[in-house]
Amino acid sequence: MSHIELGVDETLFPGIIGPLLFRPLTAKPLLELAETLLRGENTLSRGDRELISAYVSSRNECEFCADSHAAFAAAQLDQGMPLVLQVQADPDRAPITPKLASLLRIAGAVAESGRRVTTELVEGARGQGATDEEIHDTVLIAAAFCMYNRYVDGLGTLPAGRAQDYVEVAEAIVADGYMPLAGGTPSA
Amino acid sequence: MSHIELGVDETLFPGIIGPLLFRPLTAKPLLELAETLLRGENTLSRGDRELISAYVSSRNECEFCADSHAAFAAAQLDQGMPLVLQVQADPDRAPITPKLASLLRIAGAVAESGRRVTTELVEGARGQGATDEEIHDTVLIAAAFCMYNRYVDGLGTLPAGRAQDYVEVAEAIVADGYMPLAGGTPSA
Repeated sequence: MSHIELGVDETLFPGIIGPLLFRPLTAKPLLELAETLLRGENTLSRGDRELISAYVSSRNECEFCADSHAAFAAAQLDQGMPLVLQVQADPDRAPITPKLASLLRIAGAVAESGRRVTTELVEGARGQGATDEEIHDTVLIAAAFCMYNRYVDGLGTLPAGRAQDYVEVAEAIVADGYMPLAGGTPSA
Repeated sequence: MSHIELGVDETLFPGIIGPLLFRPLTAKPLLELAETLLRGENTLSRGDRELISAYVSSRNECEFCADSHAAFAAAQLDQGMPLVLQVQADPDRAPITPKLASLLRIAGAVAESGRRVTTELVEGARGQGATDEEIHDTVLIAAAFCMYNRYVDGLGTLPAGRAQDYVEVAEAIVADGYMPLAGGTPSA
């Protein structure tokens, strides 16, 4: 049971879904931000961006976000869920490119505090070929999930009952994006 | 100097302004969220909502956000900057209503982690007359500033050079809202 009366059956609308339905005015910019960051045109793949969000959510111990975005990442990465779970456990030992590893190090720093992002971490990413835009987007994705995670857990919402639920939502997200959660128009 | 090349003179465009100009696509939902949360129709006053954001930014040691939102709060509260500074230093000893104090306790918990928000904290706020919507908005304002603070500091941006700069921006925010920062239409 969440801390406030969300007006929905939380077993059917777990995690962030209840709060989004409770307050449509804030749901719109929250979902537009997710859609832009995770699915908008970008040199980072959608799978890699979901991986960053799943990793940060895992660092913040937000079960709903960690498990849902793990499913969204797995659905868009060739290596699927085994890779996502490796990254969530220890990105430095996961079989990913040095560039993505360096961006995940920045994301992990952001999860603690913006002040933990050092010149050394940024230079490390740049040395692996990351652009300023990719560094910017990694910082903002990580920062945004520090918000979503606190929103979901700060209201005491429930995670989904079954892992399969996230897999089913992943199919919808991959096909239509985040805006349908606010009653918006699907994106390609 | 920020960690990436923002393409602006950072002494003229301090803090979040540079990143907003660097990436207009993400600036829009970021500013819409701030506008809705801090200035949209609400039973919590604009001054009180800015006070929550100034307090959370102070807890997160984000100088730019703590000082700018302190100025925005002071401009919209009868007791002005002395009260804002008291709240940032210790909300439990500041001369505010028990309801606002209980909401600030929730915001302070969110700053640490969503998981720190307990049933006891929420019941405490409800006991002082806070509604479910007010509790929701307090959690989301606090969570959102955990994002903005990390965005500003994670990119290594500079704070403004003079306290007076924030006072001047406060006048513009009070008059026209946040959307002009994205080239949007002023709100009443």
